[in-house]
Amino acid sequence: MPITVTGSIAFDSVRTPFGERERMLGGTSVHFALAASFFDTVRVVGCVGEDFGDHEMDVLRRRGVEVDDVERIAGGKTFFWRGDYGWDLNSRETLATELGVFEGFQPKLGERSLASEVLFLGNIQPDLQRMVRAQMPHARLVALDSMNLWIDVARDSLLEAIKTVDCVILNDAELRQLTGKPNLVSAAQEVLGWGPQAVVAKQGEYGAALVTSQGFFSAPAFPLETVVDPTGAGDTFAGGFMGYLATHPAGKLKDEALRQAVICGTALASFNVEEFGTARVERLRGEEIATRVAELHKLTQFNMVSLPLRDNA
Amino acid sequence: MPITVTGSIAFDSVRTPFGERERMLGGTSVHFALAASFFDTVRVVGCVGEDFGDHEMDVLRRRGVEVDDVERIAGGKTFFWRGDYGWDLNSRETLATELGVFEGFQPKLGERSLASEVLFLGNIQPDLQRMVRAQMPHARLVALDSMNLWIDVARDSLLEAIKTVDCVILNDAELRQLTGKPNLVSAAQEVLGWGPQAVVAKQGEYGAALVTSQGFFSAPAFPLETVVDPTGAGDTFAGGFMGYLATHPAGKLKDEALRQAVICGTALASFNVEEFGTARVERLRGEEIATRVAELHKLTQFNMVSLPLRDNA
Repeated sequence: MPITVTGSIAFDSVRTPFGERERMLGGTSVHFALAASFFDTVRVVGCVGEDFGDHEMDVLRRRGVEVDDVERIAGGKTFFWRGDYGWDLNSRETLATELGVFEGFQPKLGERSLASEVLFLGNIQPDLQRMVRAQMPHARLVALDSMNLWIDVARDSLLEAIKTVDCVILNDAELRQLTGKPNLVSAAQEVLGWGPQAVVAKQGEYGAALVTSQGFFSAPAFPLETVVDPTGAGDTFAGGFMGYLATHPAGKLKDEALRQAVICGTALASFNVEEFGTARVERLRGEEIATRVAELHKLTQFNMVSLPLRDNA
Repeated sequence: MPITVTGSIAFDSVRTPFGERERMLGGTSVHFALAASFFDTVRVVGCVGEDFGDHEMDVLRRRGVEVDDVERIAGGKTFFWRGDYGWDLNSRETLATELGVFEGFQPKLGERSLASEVLFLGNIQPDLQRMVRAQMPHARLVALDSMNLWIDVARDSLLEAIKTVDCVILNDAELRQLTGKPNLVSAAQEVLGWGPQAVVAKQGEYGAALVTSQGFFSAPAFPLETVVDPTGAGDTFAGGFMGYLATHPAGKLKDEALRQAVICGTALASFNVEEFGTARVERLRGEEIATRVAELHKLTQFNMVSLPLRDNA
């Protein structure tokens, strides 16, 4: 089932301990779409400025991503972000955020975008997420991401948006902030109580956790010796996750499919961070993903044994 | 195979968002021994002050722990630690550390302690770790823990100690500090290059990772809705880990046994944090451990599927 995604399209200037790059193609929709494109057709709803060229658009088109609903605004500038990562890549400082055309972004969904049965509401103002959601009442699988800013300044609207989706995908810190519950399991269960059937807590270098009414699943990040640039890892994860579920319409919210989706998201994200920007995922091949999924299986499995426990010493 | 452990025996005063407790029984050797006692006999080498009573010693004795080599020093005071945890339990502040008799601790191993074939060198001054290790040349399985202080002030001695052990168990932050490598996989591989055959990176609420020459294994922490007191979780993990391996002398450093040992450590640690101090582990039953191990199996497993990947979109 084709997937519609709405969220930022950006230029990112990034410095990490491994180097720096200026104005790389980035943003939620880009990272998401490239990852999900390995599974199904992705339709991007977004906006860019005049500085966004055919070269950038072609990166998406080459992966079959439909960009008819990417509005290019005359005289406008594409969203720009500049950030600097610390030595262990777990902290980052935002040096500049220039919203540009993204500030007045009003998602406009054409017929094809509206017809998708899978929808990913990337991190944008929750009012806009709700507006898009409302236009796609027949979507069979809807997930949402957000960020600390919206939890701070638009919490009520975000809660309304969350009520309308099947799955919430957030960082674990955001889940805690959103619910006021320091414990991850409690926080996720609170969100499940609002309506969604699944909560995914992204945990950066530690992987991701899935909480549903059926239980808990945890997947580590794929262990890499060199992580070059974590920018977009979360959106790439979401792309792999939603992409996999889009190919499993029947079992989309069954625990087994959700677990496999988490693993697919984990695999895709692990490629994203190996190089700057979209470089690695752009030239990724399907068989590499399959290999990494198999490796993730190998490094999480263990055999059960009967334990030689001494109850009364 | 019986296990000898050397490390602190302490009184801990702890405040967490769930309450506070004064002068609870604690310390590396105590948490380790209680956990490992479910698998085999533990022999503790340590020292306490006059303020350490039979009541405390009985907590260990009830679990079959041998305390002949716990020296009670007349006129001395038992190691004391006071700490305060933040709202999400991931940060803690040390409010007081009174070394007491631990300051002059000289491990004295009696015949039975010397005869153990498994040795856990808890976090003490590395010179002492090496001294104990040297007295037990026939030990078949030796593991070591340490801390940021020793990495700072006794790095050379710690490196010498590490060369003499089979397994290093550290927090991931300590592994990074020790090796100067921000990447966990690289850091662990550096340590493997020094001699040990296995490195366990403890990751707190995120679980633990195992790195050997044969590969990587990752286990999440057991998801708990309420974590009351994380004090001693790492030592309890080490106790479950080493306890399990002590019962598997043949396969002690085979990947499969090491993975199962990580799971046993994870299970034990999850009980430790459910209540203050040693309260929960003191009344733990073997079947509860087995149940939790089975639950950990359930929440980490997924079925492999052939992926519907679209290579050329």
